[in-house]
Amino acid sequence: MPRVAVLGASGYAGALAAALLHRHPRFELTAITSRSDVGRRLDDLYPHHRVPLVMEELDLDRHAAVDAAVVAYPHHAAAPVVVALRERGVRVIDLSADFRLRDLATYEQWYGEHPAPELLAHAVYGLPELGYRERIAAADVVANPGCFPTAALLGLAPLARAGLIADAVIDAKTGVSGAGRAATERTHFVAVDENVRPYGVGGHRHNPEIDQELAALGAPVTTTFVPHLLPLDQGELISAYVTPARDVTEAELRALYADHYRDEPFIELTDRAPGVRDVHATNIARISVHHDGRANRVLVFAAIDNLWKGTSSQAVQNLNLMFGFPETLGIEP
Amino acid sequence: MPRVAVLGASGYAGALAAALLHRHPRFELTAITSRSDVGRRLDDLYPHHRVPLVMEELDLDRHAAVDAAVVAYPHHAAAPVVVALRERGVRVIDLSADFRLRDLATYEQWYGEHPAPELLAHAVYGLPELGYRERIAAADVVANPGCFPTAALLGLAPLARAGLIADAVIDAKTGVSGAGRAATERTHFVAVDENVRPYGVGGHRHNPEIDQELAALGAPVTTTFVPHLLPLDQGELISAYVTPARDVTEAELRALYADHYRDEPFIELTDRAPGVRDVHATNIARISVHHDGRANRVLVFAAIDNLWKGTSSQAVQNLNLMFGFPETLGIEP
Amino acid sequence: MPRVAVLGASGYAGALAAALLHRHPRFELTAITSRSDVGRRLDDLYPHHRVPLVMEELDLDRHAAVDAAVVAYPHHAAAPVVVALRERGVRVIDLSADFRLRDLATYEQWYGEHPAPELLAHAVYGLPELGYRERIAAADVVANPGCFPTAALLGLAPLARAGLIADAVIDAKTGVSGAGRAATERTHFVAVDENVRPYGVGGHRHNPEIDQELAALGAPVTTTFVPHLLPLDQGELISAYVTPARDVTEAELRALYADHYRDEPFIELTDRAPGVRDVHATNIARISVHHDGRANRVLVFAAIDNLWKGTSSQAVQNLNLMFGFPETLGIEP
Amino acid sequence: MPRVAVLGASGYAGALAAALLHRHPRFELTAITSRSDVGRRLDDLYPHHRVPLVMEELDLDRHAAVDAAVVAYPHHAAAPVVVALRERGVRVIDLSADFRLRDLATYEQWYGEHPAPELLAHAVYGLPELGYRERIAAADVVANPGCFPTAALLGLAPLARAGLIADAVIDAKTGVSGAGRAATERTHFVAVDENVRPYGVGGHRHNPEIDQELAALGAPVTTTFVPHLLPLDQGELISAYVTPARDVTEAELRALYADHYRDEPFIELTDRAPGVRDVHATNIARISVHHDGRANRVLVFAAIDNLWKGTSSQAVQNLNLMFGFPETLGIEP
Repeated sequence: MPRVAVLGASGYAGALAAALLHRHPRFELTAITSRSDVGRRLDDLYPHHRVPLVMEELDLDRHAAVDAAVVAYPHHAAAPVVVALRERGVRVIDLSADFRLRDLATYEQWYGEHPAPELLAHAVYGLPELGYRERIAAADVVANPGCFPTAALLGLAPLARAGLIADAVIDAKTGVSGAGRAATERTHFVAVDENVRPYGVGGHRHNPEIDQELAALGAPVTTTFVPHLLPLDQGELISAYVTPARDVTEAELRALYADHYRDEPFIELTDRAPGVRDVHATNIARISVHHDGRANRVLVFAAIDNLWKGTSSQAVQNLNLMFGFPETLGIEP
Repeated sequence: MPRVAVLGASGYAGALAAALLHRHPRFELTAITSRSDVGRRLDDLYPHHRVPLVMEELDLDRHAAVDAAVVAYPHHAAAPVVVALRERGVRVIDLSADFRLRDLATYEQWYGEHPAPELLAHAVYGLPELGYRERIAAADVVANPGCFPTAALLGLAPLARAGLIADAVIDAKTGVSGAGRAATERTHFVAVDENVRPYGVGGHRHNPEIDQELAALGAPVTTTFVPHLLPLDQGELISAYVTPARDVTEAELRALYADHYRDEPFIELTDRAPGVRDVHATNIARISVHHDGRANRVLVFAAIDNLWKGTSSQAVQNLNLMFGFPETLGIEP
Repeated sequence: MPRVAVLGASGYAGALAAALLHRHPRFELTAITSRSDVGRRLDDLYPHHRVPLVMEELDLDRHAAVDAAVVAYPHHAAAPVVVALRERGVRVIDLSADFRLRDLATYEQWYGEHPAPELLAHAVYGLPELGYRERIAAADVVANPGCFPTAALLGLAPLARAGLIADAVIDAKTGVSGAGRAATERTHFVAVDENVRPYGVGGHRHNPEIDQELAALGAPVTTTFVPHLLPLDQGELISAYVTPARDVTEAELRALYADHYRDEPFIELTDRAPGVRDVHATNIARISVHHDGRANRVLVFAAIDNLWKGTSSQAVQNLNLMFGFPETLGIEP
Repeated sequence: MPRVAVLGASGYAGALAAALLHRHPRFELTAITSRSDVGRRLDDLYPHHRVPLVMEELDLDRHAAVDAAVVAYPHHAAAPVVVALRERGVRVIDLSADFRLRDLATYEQWYGEHPAPELLAHAVYGLPELGYRERIAAADVVANPGCFPTAALLGLAPLARAGLIADAVIDAKTGVSGAGRAATERTHFVAVDENVRPYGVGGHRHNPEIDQELAALGAPVTTTFVPHLLPLDQGELISAYVTPARDVTEAELRALYADHYRDEPFIELTDRAPGVRDVHATNIARISVHHDGRANRVLVFAAIDNLWKGTSSQAVQNLNLMFGFPETLGIEP
């Protein structure tokens, strides 16, 4: 049974990854670490996860004695740990942004200096449904996608592959768990309740990530991406407004999507636009595609759970691929 | 002191109009009617409005003995009442969509047969900030705008007037009060809570209204408009993604907006994108404009309270204009 | 593999019971019925449950060809169906109140005439942790407890058994799913949002059920029970204020609870008062007991998920007992 | 026109007091101070209050040049400022707990050493409806009541005065604004959303305040008081369970309350138990009284807005009394 550690288990993403691996039938969760809550039990911090392990201080000698690790650190802090783990032969899922952007200059423009640029070419983008499945299975470093890129790219991939995207605007809505566990003015209940507000309007770091993968799919466009913070916990919806490269019909679009996602266990296509409640606490993306005949625009809506398919259950999906398990094991719809 | 009646006071919009007029220093609210709650006191149905009047059955002989009336009926039901009131010399604010679209064919395409097409040319669109102020002051029938058009048009008017809109997508987010008082599967708490969902994706009736007024402002575009239902009560945000007709800078855009709205008492311009909490229970629209240099797009965000500036306090603003009172009377920011 | 049907699957409780049984490893869910949604797929009505079965019209000849049935009907409607199923040899979990009260006069006082009084003595109260485990295992009709009695009785049972309750007040707080799927003025989002309100103040039907079981446990008291409706979906907290029959200490109370619930897989005792988030979507009751030395009162807080331990997962727990499966099968913490 | 300053305007309570005084027709708000946000405009921090003043650092030489001050400091920090202001002839409303408890030993038991015990006998408890109206009018230091005591005492005062309280349990529910502006683990949206949790179970500081005033009203009882945190912003409900000193009827109770509160402009008596939405953003307390005949208990429910009647609008009500203005001026229902 492969042994797995979760480094950085005190945040929302790491804690959920730990919980999913703790109850996974084929992985053994052997250790969890934290930088802020050493010595505290995870089920004290997150009772609903019911993981009775104690968070330890990171000790590579001990914590690298595993087959795989999930690194749930902020960008910049993640890369050195990923390097160290890989040197010790540990296969890594990195939840941070450090290895998502393949172009160093782009990384440095959005995140500053890269702590380990030599590894950039090595990491595989961990979105199996985008065509990375085989490379993920063989990877030693998987860059787990951002939550917004996950929803946006799953929503737009069939159009991109078909050469149908001339231009696109992506308006995203997310619950507060996406902002993380830190108690700030922005995550205070009173600031969020009965409110909706755009953020990152000057440029959000998930935007170049979206554009990189759209280009890789055959749609070299510069999208506009704006997220909005909503009074809910988990859940993320992207509403994409696409200028099509040629005339299309709604029937053609739906056939395209049905064909493209025919064998995907975690994709649900719907006629009616999806809501995030429908995918709460699942690894599922629920997607609808529409044609606005008045304006000749294609509309795509994609709903995910930002902490699950957007982050932690997607990490487990990738681990399943890396260790030859059924892709849905432990995260069945 | 002008006497005013509110017809259809049992819905959210009519009830708020009644409450605002009841405490208005210069209007006398003489009667409220209802089709569903005759005999019930308004402060029994809506304690927080504290209007101690009884809702009566509509009796034109009695209820037309006023100087003005607010008609808060659904479309199709409103028009005949508006006609009857006007014939009796009553000046009317119609909260329905019956007289918003000036083109009969467009109305019939979206709403079906028109109950009183002869009045179409007569009604004035009740959005003072769009340049209708003088015509509203002289009008005997004011078509109070839809809530989404109010936010969208206030957000886009400076761009439209300046000839800067080549194309636009409008993504709207609204609280549940916009769906009205009817208890339905869609307004059930459990359906809305922890959810966000697009609706009206096949075409929303506020879309042609938006396009009509944009054209009148000088921007004859076909927009795509999609509203989303959010887990909050009152509040509406539009996020507009505009393809500019020529190159612009953010500084130029902000100067344009500042100049355009210089003397408007109910417009607040902000650098940071607004949230709907900031305008809760006010007649204010809070607007920010941004330039996305990567994609060369103009972004506009406008927040209003859908029941206030989006409906009922805007009706009072129009009544103030019609009777020569200070525009902010009774609805001071 | 025992075959099970769920009758009345279109309500919240029936739908969740169907979902839990559909993915249960040892039961086969063979049919689901509905009175209001015949012909509709359950995953169309409740996408998040992902049960791809069609709701049928009840046909006892077909639907009684099972080993067990969960009846999710309102009281009065349930009893005749329970009788008919039992006559056909089907073992029944009745989610309604029809067989919870063992005293006919009490039933009739709170619910009106009983449709099948002859079965009253026959049904077993389905709260395993109260000492009914063996009788449930042998039962052919199990009266699944009300959600409030479940939380209240689990919270108070150790005190009742120890003869420590002289008097008790139970203040309950519940999410809106407890009010059911019907769209009413009371379940409208706008009525619940930013609100908290007591209901059933004149006497709630769960009060005699609580008192019946407290008496059976050795505490023949007349409690006051008042529920409050909260702006959340699933979750229920009871706050019990007990006048102790004799002097006690907090340490003694905690030892009593620890001892009483030593072997219960679904009871979690905590030092800090529990929140309902901690038990969301689980069959767990989380309980804390405290001593208020100033007023010499015992305080008990118990949190459950009203749809899970309060209703549908408790039904599965009972079915597990009835068919000799591990009690936690399919509803593991 | 009396000049008023608000010291500590960056917290929720101080900011609202400033907003109410800024638009008050008879007070002039001359200055606002802050310990954490010096130099920031209040309408930047709280746009919805629309107070265009800058928060200054406290300078008694300047800020004591007023007729009255509202001190919105935490306990212990408030007392020295109150003393200094009083010495300079400024009449003070103190929002902290420093002068609410008249018994020094009780204060020290719950709050630690008192910074200015010599002033204890001097301050007047600022709940006009409890019979303090004349003393408030003449006071130079008013101890504004805690939010929970305000609701609890308004709910119980008629019973206490009538000698009807033998014992009482008070279960309170409050919105998150009561926890203040500090961003903490407890006020994080994700901690509160879809949750309800008791707090302060070991003893809440508002409990002795409640008991002090009940005794002063003629009911020397030791109550149990437990607050619960709810997923809403503003609003507070107390549910009081009273063991009556003698037999009573519901009709008698309602007559008692009607008589007791006959002339109170801010008290609303209702037959149906109140909800907090009904009093949102008002100085009103909405109260219902019931008799539980089964258990022979009296039930009282009282709803207030914790930031308004519970704190800041009550402060304005007291200022109106102190300066001889109509009690409802600027805070009209």
